[in-house]
This record gives sequence, structure tokens and C-alpha cells, in this order.
Amino acid sequence: MAFRARHLLGIEHLSPEDIRSVLDLADSYVDLNRRTVKRTDALAGLTQINMFFENSTRTQSSFELAGKRLGADVMNMSMQTSSVKKGETLIDTALTLNAMHPDLLVVRHPSSGAVDLLAQKVNCAVINAGDGRHEHPTQALLDALTIRRAKGRIQRLTVAICGDVAHSRVARSNLLLLGKMENRVRLVGPPTLMPAGFGDIGAEICDDMREGLRDADVVMMLRLQKERMDGGFIPSEREYFHRYGLDAEKLAYAKPDAIVMHPGPMNRGVEIDGTIADDINRSVIQEQVEMGVAVRMAVMDLLAQNLRAERGRAALEAAHV
Amino acid sequence: MAFRARHLLGIEHLSPEDIRSVLDLADSYVDLNRRTVKRTDALAGLTQINMFFENSTRTQSSFELAGKRLGADVMNMSMQTSSVKKGETLIDTALTLNAMHPDLLVVRHPSSGAVDLLAQKVNCAVINAGDGRHEHPTQALLDALTIRRAKGRIQRLTVAICGDVAHSRVARSNLLLLGKMENRVRLVGPPTLMPAGFGDIGAEICDDMREGLRDADVVMMLRLQKERMDGGFIPSEREYFHRYGLDAEKLAYAKPDAIVMHPGPMNRGVEIDGTIADDINRSVIQEQVEMGVAVRMAVMDLLAQNLRAERGRAALEAAHV
Amino acid sequence: MAFRARHLLGIEHLSPEDIRSVLDLADSYVDLNRRTVKRTDALAGLTQINMFFENSTRTQSSFELAGKRLGADVMNMSMQTSSVKKGETLIDTALTLNAMHPDLLVVRHPSSGAVDLLAQKVNCAVINAGDGRHEHPTQALLDALTIRRAKGRIQRLTVAICGDVAHSRVARSNLLLLGKMENRVRLVGPPTLMPAGFGDIGAEICDDMREGLRDADVVMMLRLQKERMDGGFIPSEREYFHRYGLDAEKLAYAKPDAIVMHPGPMNRGVEIDGTIADDINRSVIQEQVEMGVAVRMAVMDLLAQNLRAERGRAALEAAHV
Repeated sequence: MAFRARHLLGIEHLSPEDIRSVLDLADSYVDLNRRTVKRTDALAGLTQINMFFENSTRTQSSFELAGKRLGADVMNMSMQTSSVKKGETLIDTALTLNAMHPDLLVVRHPSSGAVDLLAQKVNCAVINAGDGRHEHPTQALLDALTIRRAKGRIQRLTVAICGDVAHSRVARSNLLLLGKMENRVRLVGPPTLMPAGFGDIGAEICDDMREGLRDADVVMMLRLQKERMDGGFIPSEREYFHRYGLDAEKLAYAKPDAIVMHPGPMNRGVEIDGTIADDINRSVIQEQVEMGVAVRMAVMDLLAQNLRAERGRAALEAAHV
Repeated sequence: MAFRARHLLGIEHLSPEDIRSVLDLADSYVDLNRRTVKRTDALAGLTQINMFFENSTRTQSSFELAGKRLGADVMNMSMQTSSVKKGETLIDTALTLNAMHPDLLVVRHPSSGAVDLLAQKVNCAVINAGDGRHEHPTQALLDALTIRRAKGRIQRLTVAICGDVAHSRVARSNLLLLGKMENRVRLVGPPTLMPAGFGDIGAEICDDMREGLRDADVVMMLRLQKERMDGGFIPSEREYFHRYGLDAEKLAYAKPDAIVMHPGPMNRGVEIDGTIADDINRSVIQEQVEMGVAVRMAVMDLLAQNLRAERGRAALEAAHV
Repeated sequence: MAFRARHLLGIEHLSPEDIRSVLDLADSYVDLNRRTVKRTDALAGLTQINMFFENSTRTQSSFELAGKRLGADVMNMSMQTSSVKKGETLIDTALTLNAMHPDLLVVRHPSSGAVDLLAQKVNCAVINAGDGRHEHPTQALLDALTIRRAKGRIQRLTVAICGDVAHSRVARSNLLLLGKMENRVRLVGPPTLMPAGFGDIGAEICDDMREGLRDADVVMMLRLQKERMDGGFIPSEREYFHRYGLDAEKLAYAKPDAIVMHPGPMNRGVEIDGTIADDINRSVIQEQVEMGVAVRMAVMDLLAQNLRAERGRAALEAAHV
């Protein structure tokens, strides 16, 4: 088993072997009905705190369920209404929390890099649940598991990531993971929503959906923030859907067995046609949510193992002094 | 034992035998001190999600306590701040949630029929915790249990349901339940707050409190939404209390041993006089809350039994194929 | 063992022996790494409800963790969004909650005396988690434990409580506790933030920081509500920090081994210099948070023992009737 890190801050720091460890363990949690199996011992006696500085019912629930299925004591801290508003610095919030001695800390924050900063100040294992435009590693891992289960492999695939790539931490983490696993990635979207510099990591960039989807094994749609509409980035919902929304006509350019993904929540009729989203032969959108719980269980299980090993070594050293 | 349904969506679908099953089981959870007894096995290993699209600390807490007393893993999702706001449809929210594989889903929603719609899309047991003006079945069941414990029976009683009947799902579910159990129901309130059509179900309609309360065994007051004051429905708090508020003088028209009920939260001095609400010889308002936990335990226990039986059959069939 | 009370409403009602009982038990929960040790039996089968009418992520989390480490079922009720808004009185809220039969009720409320009032209406053990300007007893107890662990005793010390004393329930509870334990207390701050009447309890009052800190063993800073700036109480942040903010120069007046405390969240550069707050040789601010969990565990453990004893006696009496 690989994955010896203290934290999961981003895909950036993972080796292909780390990624495989997570996916294999996550797979072992999923039964034949695609339900995650409850085990109450892996995190028994440990405290998991979900600290969301940015609201996300969906991601928070997935982490909460994952922790409870492994027997952790789970506590949610709603940081939008907390002492942060009272003028406390992020570092002080981190130190205060650390003094309560959690074992696993799941953090979402609107600023890129905030979770890394926080991780340097605490003694527990930190999981990045999304920071600014930076990374959202468990999303990329759950996408990878979904792809591997559908395609039988997570290598040598052509993956089109489509839409608002520039503002998307989901796109960034996926791009990193898919690159490490030797896939061919195309970023597809309007030039105004395309970041500078992503081409350097080896992705092809394309502003035409039909061309971008050609022979793709995987079509990964991104969520469009509606506030970017009519704000200089893109003209209108109708125009966006016409050019970049996934419908049957555009999907026909991908491979006949291409799968369709979306991290949710979806804007039907904006970035994706409802019929495609509901097509059980193409869409794996529900399975992404299912694999989310399994992947988060695996990540927390592995981090808890590392934490326990580290504490065991520290206790042993203390005994020898 | 009856009650073989997958969901509890409304009183409408229950038989008198179903109702008796729930009340009997709920009764068995209540000890001599009227405390619900903790049992940690009935829902052990199951996940209960409370999904409230409309705020209700009181009802949500009752369901949360009930689940925890039966050993469930309980998770609250505050849907007012969730992806619903991000433009996701109710169906997509349901599908996403379903993909996390909860076992019991408790839903409150401001639109009548929304919970039924949601139940069609998920694989778990759904409990309606109040949908629009439609139904609030656990409220009617807890009211029935409270009445049965006070009166020794839930048949052949005269029950006056008083106040804002038109907008009340509590009134609607109670009317259905009391009708099924062969009670005589009177709906009492100002004509502007009286629905068309309820008379068809067999209720008598009455706009005079004294007449409506005459010889009643049970006086069930409804909560008045203050925003309906001075808005065309009713003139003022003072005037409303004078005509429809329950006080000692009006209560004297009911039977000498009539009990007084209110689903809470109460507007003292508007729909009910404080002295009546606090009179332990007449008011069973606190016991309604107590029975709420017991009834919700019973409902979730029965639904979980049905769910486990269904899954057992499915597994058996799968093994024989 | 002392501490035979039903509730913990304030330091006011505790004897020195009570205080020592809590501190000793809390100490026993802290291991060599200053981590609170998990025990899952003390509150097993009991329900703890945190009812916060005023937001405090920090205090609520500390109580939630404490309860979970002792095996309680913990439920948070966010009362700002609850039926209180629907016009329900505090008493009705209390009675409703009581009817759900919690065992431990942790309450924070913006009005002084509200928690006492609530405690009179319920059958469970109530813990005051801060009421108006009145008391915040667990804060004083955790401060006492922190002092005792740092200084080896909680008697015969000189303690300077500095800042906005007038509006601070933390100051009030600490003053009461430190007085009972025979310490010398100085209240230091601008006259506009100094209450009338506290001198009567035996505290010295001082509006000069250097004079107030002279030979102090403990320097306890208070949080400054920024809304009191430029509002007649104090001129500006800069001016306040100059005169009353704790920095190295002022701290030099205290004893060389004086410890620095702050209940958090801190306004760095207003009431305290960041360098002092982070100086691990002087500041015990993180240890205050750590001891918070331990003290709350001890308080809830003791109250639960009393509750169980009381219920045992009641059952015995009932059996003899």
C-alpha cells in the first residue's frame, strides 16, 4: 500500500500508485448493489470535523456519510456564521480548532491555498474539500473511480473536459489526475472561460465542442456559474447551450460507448440537455455521487491509518527516551 | 401486524389497521414516566436523512431524536441553503440523495405533492414531514395516540378542529385519520379560513365556536399564521381571539372532561388563552410533543422492517436466478 | 465528591469544594499529550441538546465534542431560525423541549437570567453556556483549570482581568470563581468599560494597564466588541491598543513567569499584540481551548451522575408507595 501522506491537499502531490491505492480501497467498500458497506471500526474513536467556509450541502453530506459509515464521531462547523465573522484570522481559527484535537479535518474554503495554510498549523489529517480555483481532490478521485468502473481502466483514455474550465477546481484536479494516469485530455469551452497555462500540463485546448468531443471515451461536463452569463464571459444561456451545451447531436462526435459525467448540481438546458443527463446508457452522473461516498471513506481510512502509525511511532519514541 | 407500505406519505393511504399498528408500537416505546425508551437496535446500521426544504426546528428535532433512540445514523440536510438555490431541480436533488443510499428519508417541503414526487424517484423509505397544505401524517398519528391515551379510545369521539383549517395540513391529516376511525369531526373557524370541499369527507362545518365546541370530547386548536391577519382573511388578533380564541368561557361548551390540543408553536392570546394552555387537567399539549417522538420511532421502525424484508426478498430472488 | 446540584447555572452557586471536584475530574480526562481521552460510557444512553439562541460555533463545538467523547447522543438546535421567530415564548420553547425528554440541556441566550428561568421549567440538567452579561460558568472553570495546570494552584494568585469588563459575562464568572478561591483580582480597563458595583465583590479597579498588571501572576485579556469603538465607550482601535492592548512593554510589569489568557476569538492588534498571543512561553490561549473540552466533559459527567442518582431515588420511592 502506498499513500503515506499526512494530508490530502491536492492531486498534485499524489503518485499514480497513491491514486490506485485509494481507488482499490474505495472499490472494496462498494457492494454488488453499488451501495457502500457500513464498517464501524476503521474510524472508531476518532473525531472528524467538517469545516465549510463555503456552503456545500452535497459535498458536506458525502463526507459526513462516509465518516459515519466508518464509525467516526462527525461534527459539522458552519464557518460562515462563526467567529470568522467576528474578525478572527484563519490561523487563529485553525489553532483553536487544533486545540480541540480532532483527528480528521475536512475543509472547504473560497480562497485558493487556504487549506494548505491551515494544514501547516494543525496536528491532525486535513482533507481539502475544495479551495478557491485550486483543487478538489476527492472529486477527481471519485471521477476516476467512476471512469475505471465504467471503462475497466483509468489509462489511455481520451477525456474531454467541457465548459467553464478557467474557474473550475474540479477541472484542475481532474486534469492533474488524468495526466498522471497517462490519459489524453482535451479542454473544451469558450476562450473567455479557458485558463492560460493549462496547455503546459499537456492538455489540448479547443473552443469547438464537436471537434473537442471527437472520439472521446469520456465527456466530463462542468457546472456553469450563472453569474458569469452576460457578464462578459459568455452571451446568454441560450447561446451557451447552443454552442457548448451537451446534446445528442454533439455527443454523436464522441465514441459510441462514451460516458457522460457532471459533478452537479446541474443546470439542465444550460450546460447539458436533460435527456442526455437521464440516459442510463450514457450518463454516469448518479454513479459519481455513489462513488463519492466510497472514495471519501477510502481517503479517510488511509489517512487514519497513517495518523495512527505516526502516533504509535511517537509513543514508542517517547517510551525510549 | 399491518402497515406493509414502503413510504408514509399521508394518512390517506392508511387503513384503520395500519393506524392501530403504529399507535400500538408507539405506545410500547413509552415508559411509565411517559419517556420514550431508548433501543439501539431497530435502526442500527441504517442511515436516516432529514431533508427540510422548509424550516422546522421542532419537527426536525423530534425526528432526529426518534432516529437516534433507535440507533440510526442521522444526518440533517438544510435544503434552504443547498444546491436547490443553485438552480437544481427537485428531481435532481432526489436522485443525488438517492445515490448516497440513505435508508430513511424524512422530507418537509413547502409544495403540496412534492414529497410524493420525490418518493417515486428514490429507493429508500420516505416519510412526509409536511408538504404544503397537503398532509402531515406523523402529526395526525401523534394526535391520535395522545387522544387514545387520554380518552381510552380513538373511536366514536366528537372532535372539534378549530381555526385556520383552510391552510392547515395538520387539519387535513387529522380529518382523514379521525374519519377513518369513525369519529365525528367538526371544523370550526371563520368562513374565510374554511376550505371548500372538506364537508364532502363527512365533517360538519361551523363558524361559531360555542356551537362548534358543544359536547366535544376533544378540542384541537390550530396555529394561526399571523400574516393572515389584517390581510383580508381576518380582521385583527384581538377580534380573532374574541371570536375564535379558546378561553374558559368557550371551553365550557365542550364536555366537562374534554381535552385541549395544539400542534405548536402557540400564539398565546391569539388562538388560545395561556391559562387553558397551562391547565394540566385539560391541556395535553406537552403530551403531544412526547408522543411525537414515540410515533416517529414507531413509523421508522415499521418502515425499516418493511425495507429489510423487501431487501431480503430481492437478495433471495437474486440468489435463485 | 461534592457538586450535588441539578444544574450548572453560574459560578455564584458553587462552593470551593464544588469547583475543585470539577477541576479534578476534568484533569483526569486529559492525557499526557493534553488530549482529552475518549470514554464512551459516562453519558451512554443520554441525550444532550445544545440550544443556542445566540451564535457561537466555538462554544457549541466544545460542548458537542465533550458530549460525544462521553458517548451521549448530541443534538444541536439552532434557535435563531426556530419557532422563537414564530412568536413562541421562551417558556413554551422550554416546555416543548422538556417534553422531548432530553437529559442534558446546554443553553446560550442573549438575555441575562434567561437560562435560570428555563431551568425552572424543565426536568433535565441545564448548563448555562452564557446568558447576556450574567454568567458563563464553564469558561471560568476552564480558565481555572488552565491556571491551576500552569501555576500549580488556583489560590493566592494575583489575576488582572483587562478590557471590556462591563459587558463581559466571562469577567463576571471569573471574578466570582477567583474570589471564592481566595485570589487577588484586579479589574483593568477604561472607566467607560468598567461596571459599577464589581468593587463590592472585593476586586480592585484600575484604569492604568501598567499599574494593573504590576506583579500579576495571570493576565486575562477580554474580547473587545468592535461595535463599542467610536460609540462613546472608547475612541478608536489604535488608541485602545495604545492604552489597553497587551504588548511586551506592558506585560513586563507583570511577574516574569506571568501567563497570558484570552477567551477568544481574538482581535489581534486591538486587545492583544500578535507576538504575545503566539509566545508559547507566556500564552496559554490554546490550552484554554483544550481545557474547555475537558471541563465540559467533567461538568456533564457530574450532572449526569446527579441526575441518575435522583432518578434512582424517585424510582425507589415509587416502588415503596
